[in-house]
Amino acid sequence: MHNLEVYNSLKRSKEQFKPIAEGKIGMYVCGPTVYSDVHIGNCRTFVSFDVIYRFLLYLGYKVRYVRNITDVGHLLDDGEDRISKGARKHNLEPMEVVQRYMNGFHKMMDIFNTKKPDIEPRATGHILEQIEMVQAIIDNGLAYEKNGSVYFNTKKYLEEGKAYGELSGRKIDDLLSMTRDDLKNQDEKDHPSDFAIWIKASPDHIMRWNAPWSVGFPGWHLECSVMSTKYLGETFDIHGGGNDLKFPHHENEIAQNVGACNCQPARYWLHTNMLLMNGRKMSKSEDNSITPQELFSGDSKHISQGYHPMALRFFMLQSHYRSTLDLTDDALKAADKGFKRLCDARKTLMSLESSSANGSKDQEIRGILDGAIAEMCDDFNTPKALAKIFELVPIINSYADGKIAADSISQELLASAKKEFEAIYTDVFGLYDPQEEGGGSHDALDKVMRLVLDIRQDARTNKDWDTSDKIRDGLAAAGITVKDGKDGSSWSV
Amino acid sequence: MHNLEVYNSLKRSKEQFKPIAEGKIGMYVCGPTVYSDVHIGNCRTFVSFDVIYRFLLYLGYKVRYVRNITDVGHLLDDGEDRISKGARKHNLEPMEVVQRYMNGFHKMMDIFNTKKPDIEPRATGHILEQIEMVQAIIDNGLAYEKNGSVYFNTKKYLEEGKAYGELSGRKIDDLLSMTRDDLKNQDEKDHPSDFAIWIKASPDHIMRWNAPWSVGFPGWHLECSVMSTKYLGETFDIHGGGNDLKFPHHENEIAQNVGACNCQPARYWLHTNMLLMNGRKMSKSEDNSITPQELFSGDSKHISQGYHPMALRFFMLQSHYRSTLDLTDDALKAADKGFKRLCDARKTLMSLESSSANGSKDQEIRGILDGAIAEMCDDFNTPKALAKIFELVPIINSYADGKIAADSISQELLASAKKEFEAIYTDVFGLYDPQEEGGGSHDALDKVMRLVLDIRQDARTNKDWDTSDKIRDGLAAAGITVKDGKDGSSWSV
Repeated sequence: MHNLEVYNSLKRSKEQFKPIAEGKIGMYVCGPTVYSDVHIGNCRTFVSFDVIYRFLLYLGYKVRYVRNITDVGHLLDDGEDRISKGARKHNLEPMEVVQRYMNGFHKMMDIFNTKKPDIEPRATGHILEQIEMVQAIIDNGLAYEKNGSVYFNTKKYLEEGKAYGELSGRKIDDLLSMTRDDLKNQDEKDHPSDFAIWIKASPDHIMRWNAPWSVGFPGWHLECSVMSTKYLGETFDIHGGGNDLKFPHHENEIAQNVGACNCQPARYWLHTNMLLMNGRKMSKSEDNSITPQELFSGDSKHISQGYHPMALRFFMLQSHYRSTLDLTDDALKAADKGFKRLCDARKTLMSLESSSANGSKDQEIRGILDGAIAEMCDDFNTPKALAKIFELVPIINSYADGKIAADSISQELLASAKKEFEAIYTDVFGLYDPQEEGGGSHDALDKVMRLVLDIRQDARTNKDWDTSDKIRDGLAAAGITVKDGKDGSSWSV
Repeated sequence: MHNLEVYNSLKRSKEQFKPIAEGKIGMYVCGPTVYSDVHIGNCRTFVSFDVIYRFLLYLGYKVRYVRNITDVGHLLDDGEDRISKGARKHNLEPMEVVQRYMNGFHKMMDIFNTKKPDIEPRATGHILEQIEMVQAIIDNGLAYEKNGSVYFNTKKYLEEGKAYGELSGRKIDDLLSMTRDDLKNQDEKDHPSDFAIWIKASPDHIMRWNAPWSVGFPGWHLECSVMSTKYLGETFDIHGGGNDLKFPHHENEIAQNVGACNCQPARYWLHTNMLLMNGRKMSKSEDNSITPQELFSGDSKHISQGYHPMALRFFMLQSHYRSTLDLTDDALKAADKGFKRLCDARKTLMSLESSSANGSKDQEIRGILDGAIAEMCDDFNTPKALAKIFELVPIINSYADGKIAADSISQELLASAKKEFEAIYTDVFGLYDPQEEGGGSHDALDKVMRLVLDIRQDARTNKDWDTSDKIRDGLAAAGITVKDGKDGSSWSV
């Protein structure tokens, strides 16, 4: 088995990855709060974890990947539930809001070709379990009830010698004074750093359930504590999420799990970094933002053209998940070009043939392929793994053009290179060639194009320039580019 | 507003449809139990309700369409939970089974071009509410606890003068002696027709929740009582489902709702009829079954070719939802042909033009279009509505061919006919033309085909038979059929 190393946010260092049960991995990733259209920054987070999931599967692990849907309890700064606010805004029942944006989220995840999680639990599907965890924390003396709401007692937790602030690196004194979470009920708390785990519903709050303390709803942080451990056990392997969730969300998750069952929920905490735009945080009010749809269509003054979702996915892979990713038109254009180059090389590679028993280039090619996997084993370093794969491109093209000898790659190596390239491109990176989309129509187009290029060849042979001009113009009008090579012509839309 | 009549299973008669709140409709349809791949019979049911949903929207109603996912509690004859059995079979956590088959179900619904429901609640998402309804029924004296399980007291219910058996038409005496539901715990029941609303989990039962009576799980019938009324109110407009759910599922739903809040849940009960194959019930053991995938691919000895999902949808529309639908290869072939004819006519219609102020055919066309809607208003009679629409086909084709005069259809009528045809075809029937699939590739193919047909015309003019033969053969190889007409050539894949 490969030697996988991951950067553990909890330890602030890279560690060798060892699963709790050999060959099996439990991974929990905080999913979206479904009260508005998914943000391109979220897409980046989920694409990052998709690649991590895919690579773990590639390494042969049996992975149970759990990613939740937050459909209740995620409050805004003013104390209003995000879903309820969405419901009021659209004059819909909260669950209609949830359904609409959950459908939209799923569609976007499909567009970015992410694999579906093995379990996608919803917060409202686990109210009973959340009530039980609140009770367990109360029973352990680490939470208290005030006016129907229940708060986690951070001071007591610290006094018991438990580490609050370990993940986010916040200092205890700061926490006791600085926390601004749940400002609305600030006066009910014994200490400013305490946080709500059950919230009494105000009379106008739509989403509400009966609990021993009040008719109310669970705190946002609680759902992940409950759902991760319900489906993965009290302690599991990997917990992931965006950097912005480290505090307070993940910090509180740890406290709740330790408070309820006295054990750390996850062994490895993985956090993805932010997506920037033109070097700054995206912000609608500062006119510095773009939606996924605008990126696809090009319908935004911030970009010069539309980009295929796979070009965007390639663009995301060009940064490491722990680095910020700066979205600029120049960078997108470069990624688009790079992605096409990779797709063309793949197509060329698949058409190559060899009948040689040995190959002088074999060792080099083997080294590149193994190198790409080695980079992925180094904390899922997709930019370096991509760079490795790009070392193959000139070799592939030179071989296809006859610039390097036909016997420089052995039949055996070529066969395994095709297989491994495909595994990395398709299974690990999760890419596909947009030119291969469209099923039946594309097949038909392929065959018709063969016919057209054949007629064009005849016309050229017969010096029938009228026909060959007509074909040139007709194909240009159809948006089709023809590339003439030694072994015939290829084309692309 | 149109005069809509629906067949109400509860009254066994067609009734004028009147929603509870003017202009608004609440509709609940029993969704799938997600423990195996979706059956083509289920597809028919959900396509039927999709058309009903679409037509209600077409009529201008604001519809809240709720369709649940059963992910717990649906027991097999041997008393085992279907999801748990699936989990054991695949060696998965039950929620992984649920996720897998729920994803598969959603994908199939997309393939059949059904609209997503406004809310798709899951049974496990409403355990707390189910426990509360069990308690309400106990409090009303209509349920009793035995060894941790809770049973609905049908005898008491009848004694109070409430109608049990009204929907299914079963006689009380039969019910008291004949019911075979939940055989496993038969000895715990006071009367054979009683049914479990909370079931104590056996030690090996995986899915379990804490309730006042035991650690257990809710009865299958209970979830729909809870979820329909939670999202649509104690009494709502339409409850739908397959015929096979009438008893015991829907009968028990009514009893539970009446038992809990003393009111009927739904005003109109709509039931779809069965899908047969070659005149008999589908059965794997009798070698008389086919899966949706096999229908698409043609990979089954029961059919001579594959059918596009839209041809299958068209096939389903050719039967009324309350009639059985017999799936045979001949019927499918005929539907496939009919569907192509409809698609071609649509394409032709959209290309028609008129500059006439009046039209001798206007009244006839208007009558056909209005007639189609009138048929839909008669209990969603899709076969008759389709037949109406087909009356347009010869008119469209004759007009296109110049067989009827250019001034026989007015400009105004043609414009509204195009719009209304499109609304019925796309919005109500939920069809699309498979030839228009494939996005970019299809666009490119369209343009390249124009080029190819242009070159073919040149070749014919120049008596260049080599080239025209080459084009004929090349297009045949690409699976493309060319149809030459008065105004040029059209083609299809």
